[in-house]
Amino acid sequence: MQYLKISVILVIWLDRRKIRDIMSKENFSNIVEIIKDGNITTVPEFYAGSCHSGIRKWKDDLSIIFTPLRTTTSAVFTTNKFAAAPIKVDKWQLKKSRNINAIVINSGISNACTGKEGYLNALETVKIAAENLDIGEQNVLVSSTGRIGVQLPMEKIKYGIEVCSKNLTRQGGGNAAKAILTIDKKTKEIAVKLKDQNPEIIIGGIAKGSVMIEPNMATTLAFLTTNVKISIKLLDKLLKDAVSVTFNCLTTDGCQSTNDMIVAVANAQSGVDVSKNNKLLRNFKTALYFVLESLTKKVAEDAEGVTKIIEIEVINSKSIHTAKNIGKKVANSLLFKTAMFGQDLNWGRIVAAIGSEGSNMDQEKIDLYFGDELIMKKGSKNDFDKKKTAQMMRDSFLRFKVDLNSGNFKAKILTNDITYDYIKMNAEYKKQR
Amino acid sequence: MQYLKISVILVIWLDRRKIRDIMSKENFSNIVEIIKDGNITTVPEFYAGSCHSGIRKWKDDLSIIFTPLRTTTSAVFTTNKFAAAPIKVDKWQLKKSRNINAIVINSGISNACTGKEGYLNALETVKIAAENLDIGEQNVLVSSTGRIGVQLPMEKIKYGIEVCSKNLTRQGGGNAAKAILTIDKKTKEIAVKLKDQNPEIIIGGIAKGSVMIEPNMATTLAFLTTNVKISIKLLDKLLKDAVSVTFNCLTTDGCQSTNDMIVAVANAQSGVDVSKNNKLLRNFKTALYFVLESLTKKVAEDAEGVTKIIEIEVINSKSIHTAKNIGKKVANSLLFKTAMFGQDLNWGRIVAAIGSEGSNMDQEKIDLYFGDELIMKKGSKNDFDKKKTAQMMRDSFLRFKVDLNSGNFKAKILTNDITYDYIKMNAEYKKQR
Repeated sequence: MQYLKISVILVIWLDRRKIRDIMSKENFSNIVEIIKDGNITTVPEFYAGSCHSGIRKWKDDLSIIFTPLRTTTSAVFTTNKFAAAPIKVDKWQLKKSRNINAIVINSGISNACTGKEGYLNALETVKIAAENLDIGEQNVLVSSTGRIGVQLPMEKIKYGIEVCSKNLTRQGGGNAAKAILTIDKKTKEIAVKLKDQNPEIIIGGIAKGSVMIEPNMATTLAFLTTNVKISIKLLDKLLKDAVSVTFNCLTTDGCQSTNDMIVAVANAQSGVDVSKNNKLLRNFKTALYFVLESLTKKVAEDAEGVTKIIEIEVINSKSIHTAKNIGKKVANSLLFKTAMFGQDLNWGRIVAAIGSEGSNMDQEKIDLYFGDELIMKKGSKNDFDKKKTAQMMRDSFLRFKVDLNSGNFKAKILTNDITYDYIKMNAEYKKQR
Repeated sequence: MQYLKISVILVIWLDRRKIRDIMSKENFSNIVEIIKDGNITTVPEFYAGSCHSGIRKWKDDLSIIFTPLRTTTSAVFTTNKFAAAPIKVDKWQLKKSRNINAIVINSGISNACTGKEGYLNALETVKIAAENLDIGEQNVLVSSTGRIGVQLPMEKIKYGIEVCSKNLTRQGGGNAAKAILTIDKKTKEIAVKLKDQNPEIIIGGIAKGSVMIEPNMATTLAFLTTNVKISIKLLDKLLKDAVSVTFNCLTTDGCQSTNDMIVAVANAQSGVDVSKNNKLLRNFKTALYFVLESLTKKVAEDAEGVTKIIEIEVINSKSIHTAKNIGKKVANSLLFKTAMFGQDLNWGRIVAAIGSEGSNMDQEKIDLYFGDELIMKKGSKNDFDKKKTAQMMRDSFLRFKVDLNSGNFKAKILTNDITYDYIKMNAEYKKQR
């Protein structure tokens, strides 16, 4: 059994490496075309809408994403042990059916730490939506983001679903993208189509999140729509793989929400089976990765007070796991993040973070690059161009590379600096409620 | 083999639990008496001194702790893979002999990431000290704290050791306590004696650190002296156990230095064998814990910009390991730390941090207390006294308790809030060099 596990993991690793290689070698623009102002309803036969149910004071707080067609739906959820009620209900729903026609999302209240009542409220939301949309209860998912420890006001939810389900349109994606936001400053939406493909294959997506900068009003949510025909098993795998190298490689402050979820709904409208041939499958993978990567970057850029986006690539590692962990150790080092804000190439902080990772490593094999400048060679300081690196530190996008020189795996982690505004935002959150 | 490991670990756990119990049940003041203005040289036959070797501009930067008597010496070191040269040399030294007579400490340069040259410089420091103090090379330890990636200026080190070794006095502990500091604001020193014990048994200690608030000029160092007679095996165990519930339960920003070390030197001057009887051994344990706990608190209080010290106790856990990990998840949550700075009892952030810990846990068993107020009961919000807790949030010492209700183990983690001054200090560090 132990051996079986190991071999399965190895296969996944090898496959992930392949994905990364596809991404780095191929030019996205040969495969993917961005559709101007596109989002989830750019995909045929997807409808959406939003309304003001009254949970929040000033803005739309309830939205529905809908398709009348039979779907294949996959989702990934937070691993937080205090997973909110909607997460628990959705896991249960997806066990019953992968044919999801509607997702109901409320913002303002997360329905986390709400006990049995919260769970019953999430189930009740499913029921109300099924009645109003005239679909089966098993075909509905729910999603919440907002304050922890507060019960959903079910009268408002009911009113919201009744209003919203009557106003679902093929242009409603943008409104849904707005209504799922909480403290985000910008909407996050995208749609792409595969080039040279007839009938057209489109992937659309919307997201919310300033990446756990705020767990009471935070959460990362992403909803993807597409019109391909795809098996449950394949969509599960593609979504999991693409999330593992995009959203799961983003870290703002190392905190993890109780409500995170990413859902992909495929309604088969194009009639094209994505596994028809290898080229199509590869192009669809690339497009899915591109959509998730774009939404990830939009979330990173929206983090409070950010002045710099920082990429940490760890290469030539014994495993993807180690590469990811080392990258995250650096990305989550408060000392590193504050130094970046101060435009100080304090590489000792990077080294201390790398060395604090748990796995065996040989210090005397490790190289560290800032951009293309070799800062540390074989574990010791290298004579680098101080003038050039000082200039590079002023950029808003910083690239570091850690070469472990001990294997063939790699990972890329995205993060941002930590600034006065982050502290202000989070220390004074109470006053802003 | 697997079983052997598990049983050994269990024994250690049980023993640690015992230590904690001793600490909480017994009243320190019945066992330990603090000696006013005491430190390492309050212990008979220990000598110390410091001087200005020229590594740093304005302050003493080199110190020596010395005893002419035969000793038993134990040490614990950082687990950082980029451990500095002195750490590597000391581990080697202690393999050769546990009879350490002198420790040479320099501040200003950490001798980390300095390659072979750095290693040879640390060995050379040992040699110079042995010659000047007329002891064997195997009887010397070295310790460094300061900037990473810079070589030790050996002429200055040599000059410093020559001057310092001629000026070792029985009153020199205070000067050593000052010379080992870098960005610390206050010296950290203490000495205690066991009550009703004749001949007198004393434990002295000095420490430096603002807990990795600054890895280029940071590091936690602690040096303890005592005049008991003790076996290597027992001192190893007592030091490791006491450190595991004191210094290793302190976290300021989750970062880990390349140079951390804690050394305990016992010179047997009192002639009293600490394992003579159970009561004496228990009292000595308590005193050792008290000294390390006091130094830990002094380090926590000295962290940059701190306005609050926060204790997170995790009780009724399946294991000490889980209890510690959950406590550290909360203590290292940037969102939690900024909320504490803002005096905002944002308990959702605590819950999200608890839930992000990797082990299995049952949300519906978990209670959360702030002081004695029950904030969350069985995973759901409890109706607590908002006025009272708002008042309590203004204190400079905050106490949280997480009751997992699933075992018999517990751990206590100490941390502090994160403030504007932390960001300022670390972002603008370059300007302050």
